[in-house]
Amino acid sequence: MMATRTLLSKQIMATLFRQPACSVHHGDYGNWGNTNVAVVFSGCGWWDGTDVHEGVYTMYHLSRNGARFQMFAPNQQQMHVMDHMKKQPSSGENRNLMTESARFSHGQGMTQMQDLSKLEANGYDAVIFPGGHGVTKNLSSFVKDGKDCKLHGDVERVLKDFHRSRKPIGLSSMAPLLACRVLPGIEVTMGYERDDNTRWGSWPHTSLVQAVKGMGARHNAYVDEKNKVVSTPAFLWETEQHYHYIFDGIGNMVKHVMRMSTK
Amino acid sequence: MMATRTLLSKQIMATLFRQPACSVHHGDYGNWGNTNVAVVFSGCGWWDGTDVHEGVYTMYHLSRNGARFQMFAPNQQQMHVMDHMKKQPSSGENRNLMTESARFSHGQGMTQMQDLSKLEANGYDAVIFPGGHGVTKNLSSFVKDGKDCKLHGDVERVLKDFHRSRKPIGLSSMAPLLACRVLPGIEVTMGYERDDNTRWGSWPHTSLVQAVKGMGARHNAYVDEKNKVVSTPAFLWETEQHYHYIFDGIGNMVKHVMRMSTK
Repeated sequence: MMATRTLLSKQIMATLFRQPACSVHHGDYGNWGNTNVAVVFSGCGWWDGTDVHEGVYTMYHLSRNGARFQMFAPNQQQMHVMDHMKKQPSSGENRNLMTESARFSHGQGMTQMQDLSKLEANGYDAVIFPGGHGVTKNLSSFVKDGKDCKLHGDVERVLKDFHRSRKPIGLSSMAPLLACRVLPGIEVTMGYERDDNTRWGSWPHTSLVQAVKGMGARHNAYVDEKNKVVSTPAFLWETEQHYHYIFDGIGNMVKHVMRMSTK
Repeated sequence: MMATRTLLSKQIMATLFRQPACSVHHGDYGNWGNTNVAVVFSGCGWWDGTDVHEGVYTMYHLSRNGARFQMFAPNQQQMHVMDHMKKQPSSGENRNLMTESARFSHGQGMTQMQDLSKLEANGYDAVIFPGGHGVTKNLSSFVKDGKDCKLHGDVERVLKDFHRSRKPIGLSSMAPLLACRVLPGIEVTMGYERDDNTRWGSWPHTSLVQAVKGMGARHNAYVDEKNKVVSTPAFLWETEQHYHYIFDGIGNMVKHVMRMSTK
């Protein structure tokens, strides 16, 4: 157990605490200018949709590195609406996933939210799923069914198509569980296997690690070069104020996704 | 007119396109570790609340530079709910500003959203208002009354108290109009005075510039050292994909606010 933990710990530190290092090998902000990335949202807010920080950091890093991107979300009702003050479901509220996800978009064109059913792997070089509980509630039945969960039909189709086409898949916080459910034998990270309070934060979501191992995934890497699957724990590491470490982890994920895309 | 435009243009380019430069004089990420900043939200989403990007960038830059921060929002209903796909009001929906603003927060303690009525200037070193139409709809009556708008009572109290205490005030996109309404003779920027389509974006909100000039503010600076008011145009510059320029502008605003705080 200690050996596993030490291995994980090194890898997670690499993900979270190192400044993006790809620029050393690939030049800053320029080599991937034609990369066209699909980003899949699941609502707006950590407790019932896409986490606002993970969604915004993903869009920022794509922008900073010169990628084009298009935003997608399922055009259907959310599982439920969470009161983010009380961290309890709100009664009598109903929201549409695509409409709420559109709170991340600005203006028209590329940044206009689109229906996930229209996302085809042959139109994009890579796909990224930012995390948040929308992954466990709207893009899959994980919150009810755990490791035996079903994925949203379009999510399953998109993941299988990008994987089959050898196009990179980027995942943050709990989003790796989607890929683990339908892509056999992939390697991902979802943070520490044991909660370990540190000075700056803790790992309260260790049950997720056990679940993805139960799905047959190897939980020991954040860049699976063979399968072109890149994951970063993001807000599975619970921190009060050190958001910039999460930002750096998502920055690494985006850069590896762009590096491994065919363009 | 051309002279004014050239002056503005230089200042806006400085705001938007220059990398944060304060680090040259003040050292990176460290001199302001005890700065305690209040951030005021107005909902969640560009069309009826705080823009998700401006809110997240503000929190990121505070985190990166070692500040502590506390989030506040009025505990009352939003003016209305906007469908962010259709960019029209949704009928029959009602949302609470503090509950929706809490979609920006994670966990407990410092990052738990608090009632704006509890914000006292003597507890903080600076205050920042990220932009978004929540500023014009929930924190003021600007959307209805233009330059003669009324501010939310707590917003007016907070701005006057921080200004009277010589504590810095940071503002992005349309948030400067709040300060212009109640602090006489301050200097702010809200982007170009004329729309000018460039390769990467445009300035569709030039009427706001006329409004703040009508309030008696001088529209020609983004750091008003005398009044300790720092503003950045953010999403008043409409761009499809170049989010990182907005990110840099907010980064500059946060660094100047922290530099001018008493700690």
